[in-house]
Order: sequence, then structure tokens, then C-alpha cells
Amino acid sequence: MVRRERRSVTLLGASGSVGRATVDLIERGGADYKVEAVVGGRDAAALAEIAVRLGASLAVVADERQGGALARALEGSGVASAAGPSAAIDAASRPVDWTMAAISGAAGLAPTIAAVRRGGTIALATKECLVCAGAAFMREVERAGATLLPVDSEHNALLQALGGQSLDTVETMTLTASGGPFRTWPAEAIAAARPQEALKHPTWSMGAKITIDSATLMNKGLELIEAHYLFGIGSDRLEVVVHPQSIIHGLVTFRDGAVTAGLAAQDMRVPIAHALGYPERISTPAARLDLGRIGTLTFEAPDLTRFPALRLAREALEAGGGAATILNAANEVAVAAFLDGRIGFSAIAGVVEDALSDADAATLRNAPQTVEEALELDALSRRLADSSLPEAALQAH
Amino acid sequence: MVRRERRSVTLLGASGSVGRATVDLIERGGADYKVEAVVGGRDAAALAEIAVRLGASLAVVADERQGGALARALEGSGVASAAGPSAAIDAASRPVDWTMAAISGAAGLAPTIAAVRRGGTIALATKECLVCAGAAFMREVERAGATLLPVDSEHNALLQALGGQSLDTVETMTLTASGGPFRTWPAEAIAAARPQEALKHPTWSMGAKITIDSATLMNKGLELIEAHYLFGIGSDRLEVVVHPQSIIHGLVTFRDGAVTAGLAAQDMRVPIAHALGYPERISTPAARLDLGRIGTLTFEAPDLTRFPALRLAREALEAGGGAATILNAANEVAVAAFLDGRIGFSAIAGVVEDALSDADAATLRNAPQTVEEALELDALSRRLADSSLPEAALQAH
Repeated sequence: MVRRERRSVTLLGASGSVGRATVDLIERGGADYKVEAVVGGRDAAALAEIAVRLGASLAVVADERQGGALARALEGSGVASAAGPSAAIDAASRPVDWTMAAISGAAGLAPTIAAVRRGGTIALATKECLVCAGAAFMREVERAGATLLPVDSEHNALLQALGGQSLDTVETMTLTASGGPFRTWPAEAIAAARPQEALKHPTWSMGAKITIDSATLMNKGLELIEAHYLFGIGSDRLEVVVHPQSIIHGLVTFRDGAVTAGLAAQDMRVPIAHALGYPERISTPAARLDLGRIGTLTFEAPDLTRFPALRLAREALEAGGGAATILNAANEVAVAAFLDGRIGFSAIAGVVEDALSDADAATLRNAPQTVEEALELDALSRRLADSSLPEAALQAH
Repeated sequence: MVRRERRSVTLLGASGSVGRATVDLIERGGADYKVEAVVGGRDAAALAEIAVRLGASLAVVADERQGGALARALEGSGVASAAGPSAAIDAASRPVDWTMAAISGAAGLAPTIAAVRRGGTIALATKECLVCAGAAFMREVERAGATLLPVDSEHNALLQALGGQSLDTVETMTLTASGGPFRTWPAEAIAAARPQEALKHPTWSMGAKITIDSATLMNKGLELIEAHYLFGIGSDRLEVVVHPQSIIHGLVTFRDGAVTAGLAAQDMRVPIAHALGYPERISTPAARLDLGRIGTLTFEAPDLTRFPALRLAREALEAGGGAATILNAANEVAVAAFLDGRIGFSAIAGVVEDALSDADAATLRNAPQTVEEALELDALSRRLADSSLPEAALQAH
């Protein structure tokens, strides 16, 4: 194996689940990496511990109020500390070879953009950049000459299955979906589903928002949008197949009829390691797939009647302009309202559909030209979706 | 899409099933190809028809006695004709960019070697070169700087799944096996199996020899040997998993735990098109995989007790030297004897095992240094295996 140069890295979202998996790989890599900055949200103690373990030059906690706790925890460690959103952006702007962009939600956008503008390789573990501001974000990536590597399972699998081949040779890309906890439920039962039922994801343990998105299949819809921007592939060439075992994560069909697929056991270290080693491969102790033991993989077409969110996401993608931004914003509002007991499960897609049909023609037609414009449209769409919700009276559960 | 230059091609084995699928693709490609020579075995009429359809410069029938029929069939067509084994070698030696090597059995060896020596890209559809003379054959490929592309489903899938990545990054390569018609049969029933039962292959329609090899799993054992030489990968990193639906053909596990797989519908045009377009991709009308419709893929570990041939092939690969040549020769003799009713099904592996244990130490230790030496060992091993068979008295069926 060719010995690579030592790689300088920064972790945005170091104390989250993707961040911790990245920390594990970097620790195992030892001298292969020099850690420039680690940025976390609120948990100063965890962040300080990670910074010391990795020998980072700088640790930044985005929540300004945690700055004191972080500084105290790092006293005498040789790790500099800072706090607040602009310190997070400054940390992301420091020159490094590789950045893990894993700050979820709108908070991750500005630091991620800062990292992209600085260039190098960006491992992208947050959806917002692509679903809220896809076209504008990809223009930033292109302008900076950055290398963008997706680390969520599906897009990473597609990237590996594509294997550097030209998109011209690709007929379709297929994302697999677990189908969520309601895959086999009749429509009436889904409509009456309670938050605690929707929160039982069959294969992954994740946050509440994304778990509900998996139950509605909106998660797969958002991934269609991400794939569109990441690979520059049209909606007409993007497919979804339900695959409850989540072993095959993505498939690429080429114009000769050959199909390559990306598979992995359910360990986030696998796609993260792919991005961390790229274009080489590093070793990981992640569980290996054993198909003989797994035994059976099943597949079925998604049911767009029981799961209208997937249809809506595709329609938003086809509409283009600001539609994906509106879809994403309205969905976040709707999911929060469902988790709060303000609306029923099937009303989530209803809120999204209303937001898209209520949007004026000009908004739908014109894609946000900058990330800032996308954020404005996002905020406006949230307000509109929120005001469309029923009064806070609790529904029947 | 970048317009490629016109590609000159020669088809060895033009009238067989792989040859005909190649003819179909070349015909569809029209002006993209200039056909230099088409070489067939015995069927002069079919060969002449192919030569005229493709506008070949030369048609050669390997069976000398068919030379007159071929010449008459091509009279006035502008296609030159020739006959006999040395004419086949001469045809294979003509300079072209791409050669389909699809003459099966020992007859294919000399023309394939001639094509390799001339260089260019060789699409390999015949097992003999690699299982009988692997090391020597690969030396010829390297010496000539030829590009060798496997077109059987499993190795082509592995090549696509590898995607040009270094073997250093590969942990294992896995070949899938249909499991053959006796996959679910108990050992006693397998031992008593008749030729007509063994000839019922569950997923592919093939010749008798390879169908019996699929029933014993020796076919997969020979493919392990092929994969070893093709990719330069050791037996300890080669695995087999039984997958009755034959949708996934091969999988590559990388050292980070990521797995890429090659899949395709059962249409030989898919891997042939991959080799024909390589490193680009050409379009084919082959059926597309529809996993939602296929529904279920199953996998199980191979049972080396009921299917000892797979174990024997791996042992031969590990023994190295001349063992694979002996294994292949003894197996051909044993399969022919089974089809003739001279030995029972489970005696096939017995004949092979005896041949390997009877071989003297020097033969086992020293790999044939040239293709000619491999052919000598092959002939010797056939004679020895043949003489070890029971007298021609018919067994109990």
C-alpha cells in the first residue's frame, strides 16, 4: 500500500453520532491524521474529551453559553477553545484537506458553506445543504473546486457503485428504502398512527425527525432530491425500491444493462471510512456483510398511495425552482406538529402538499440563486406552513 | 457521449451462443465496428451467414472438412474463406482492436493464445485458458500487454464491482453460485442422481458439460481458479455464496467494509457489451433488472459435504503447481463418464480426488511453465483419469 501524506482534518459536528464514528476512525488512523478543529453543538464536556483525544488544535462549541465550560475543560490541555456560531464558521474556514460536515439542521449550513468555500474534500453528512439549497450549494462546491463526498448510506453506495464512470453511461440510479414501520400497514391504520408507533424504525436508530421521515417515506423523497443535486441526475432517471433489510443501499443501472450496487452492514463507519480514505481505502473494524447468514433480501415497489410524501418529493424535484426548499420546510413544520400531537400522521403529507400548491408561481419557478436566498425561502415557507396548521388543540390521541 | 473511433474486431467462436450474442451487439453498433474475421467450428452455413451480415473480411471454419461448404456459401460475397485449425490461428493473429475468444474446449486455446500474442483487448468467454494453463496464460497476456476482460457473468461482475480499484484495497471477492439442481437434495439422492436430472439447470440453459459442473458445484470451483488468475487474488480471499436466483453475480468486499456487487438480468449480452464497450459503455436492449418485481433474493453457505467438488477445486488452487490442470482434466473425464452412464454422480468428485492424490509430488509442485506444458499435463491427466474409471459396464441406471 502506498503510504499517504498525513491528512489535516476538521470535524463539524464532532460529538454527534456521525462525528463520533469519525472520531473512532481518526483515532485508529493515529499518525495518518492531524486534527485541526472539532466543532460541536452544546455538549462542552464531550467535545473537550474528543479534542484532547484527537490532539486537535482548536475546539469550538456553537452554543455561546457553553463557551466557559469548554474553556475550563480544556485548560492546560494545549487545545484552544472558542464559542458561538461565528467561531464555528471561523473554525470551518481554516485550511484543511478534509472536513466532516455533520452539523445537522439549519445550524450546519453556514459552517458547511465556509468549509466548501475553503475547498478540499467535504464529507457531507447533513441533508439541509442539498434539500434546502441544492442548486446554490452545488454552485459553491463547483466554484471552490471542492470534492463533495456523501456519507449517508444511500448516496455513498451510489457513489461507490458509480465508480467514477460518466453519468452519460448511467440509465438509472436506484435508492433503497427500508419502508419504515408502516410498510405493511393498511392506509387507515397509517392515518391513525401515533408518534410512538412512527418512532419505531425497523433497521436504524436515529433522531425523531428523520425517523418520522422514514415512516412517511419523505426521507427517501429528500434523498431523491439530494441525489439529483449530488450526481446531476434528473428525476426521470432516479428510482426508489423498498428493501426492508437495508443491506443494498443503492444501485446504478448502466446503459448496457449492467447493474452495480453498494452494500454494507449497518455501521456508519463504512461510508465515513470511504470518504475519509478517498480515493484510497482505509481499514475499519466494521462488521462485514455475511449474505449466507443474512439469508434473504426482499424488494418491492413503493406504494405512493399509502406514502404520498415520496410522490410529493418527486413532484417538487420535477417542478424545480424553489419547490424542494418549500417541501423541506413544510415537512419540518408538519413533522414537529405531528410529534407535538397537533396533527395526525397522514396530515404530514397534507401540510406539504398544501404548501406546494399554495406557493405562488414565481417562487416555484425561480430557484434560490444563493444559499442565503434559499434560507429566506425556507424561513418564509416555515411561517406559511405553520400558520396553516390547525389551532394547537390536541388531536385524538 | 464521446464518439469513439471505429473498432476492428474478430470473433473466435462466432456461431456459438456467446458468439451470436456478440454478433447481435456488433450488428446494432453498425458503423462503430469493422469486422476483420469470424471463426467458427463446424457450421459452415451459419458462419457464412454471420460473415455476410457483419461484412467480415474473412471467415474461417476450424473443421477442415467444412472448408468447401464455407467457400461455396461465400462465393461472390466478397468475404474470403479458409478452413482448418491453422487457418483459425492465422485469423486470430490478424491485428484488431478487440477479439471475442469464445471457442470452448481445448480447441480454443491455440487461437486464443494467438490473439493474446497479437495484443489489444481480449474478451474471454472460455474457461480452458485459465483453468488448464492459468499462470502460463496470464504471463502471455502480460508479455503482450493485452487487456483481458472476462465475459462470464461472475468474473465480469467482479471486474465491474472492482471498478479499477487496487487489489490491495480488496479484502475478499465473492462468487455467487446458483447451487444447481441438487441444491436442496439430501446426499443419498444426489449420489443416485441420473444424467437427465443433473442436466436440469435451474437458471441457465447451457451445454451438458457445464450443466453437470453446475450440479456438482465444480463449475464454481473452476471459477474460483479463474478468478485467482484473472485478478491475481489468493484462495484465502476468494469466497462462494449460494444464491439460487443468480441475480447478484459477484461481490467485492473492501478493507473498509464496503461491498460493491455486480448484478444483471440473465442475458449474456450484458457482460459481452461491457467488454465490447470497455472502458466506455454501449447501449443494449437487454432486459433490465427489476428488483421490485423479482421480490426475493436468497443466499446460503455452500455445503462442501454434499458438494465436495468445490472443496477439491479450492484445495487444488491452494496446492498450486499443476493441481488445477489435473483437477480440470480429471473432471472432464469424469463428467463424460457420468453422462455415458459409466459412473454415478457422486463418483465424479471421487475420480477428481483420486487424480489429485495419485499425482506425483513433482507434478503437483511445478506449475506448467508454458501453455504447451499445460496441455501435455492435461493430456496425461486425462489418460490417467480415464484408465482409473471402472470398465465400461453400465451402472445402475
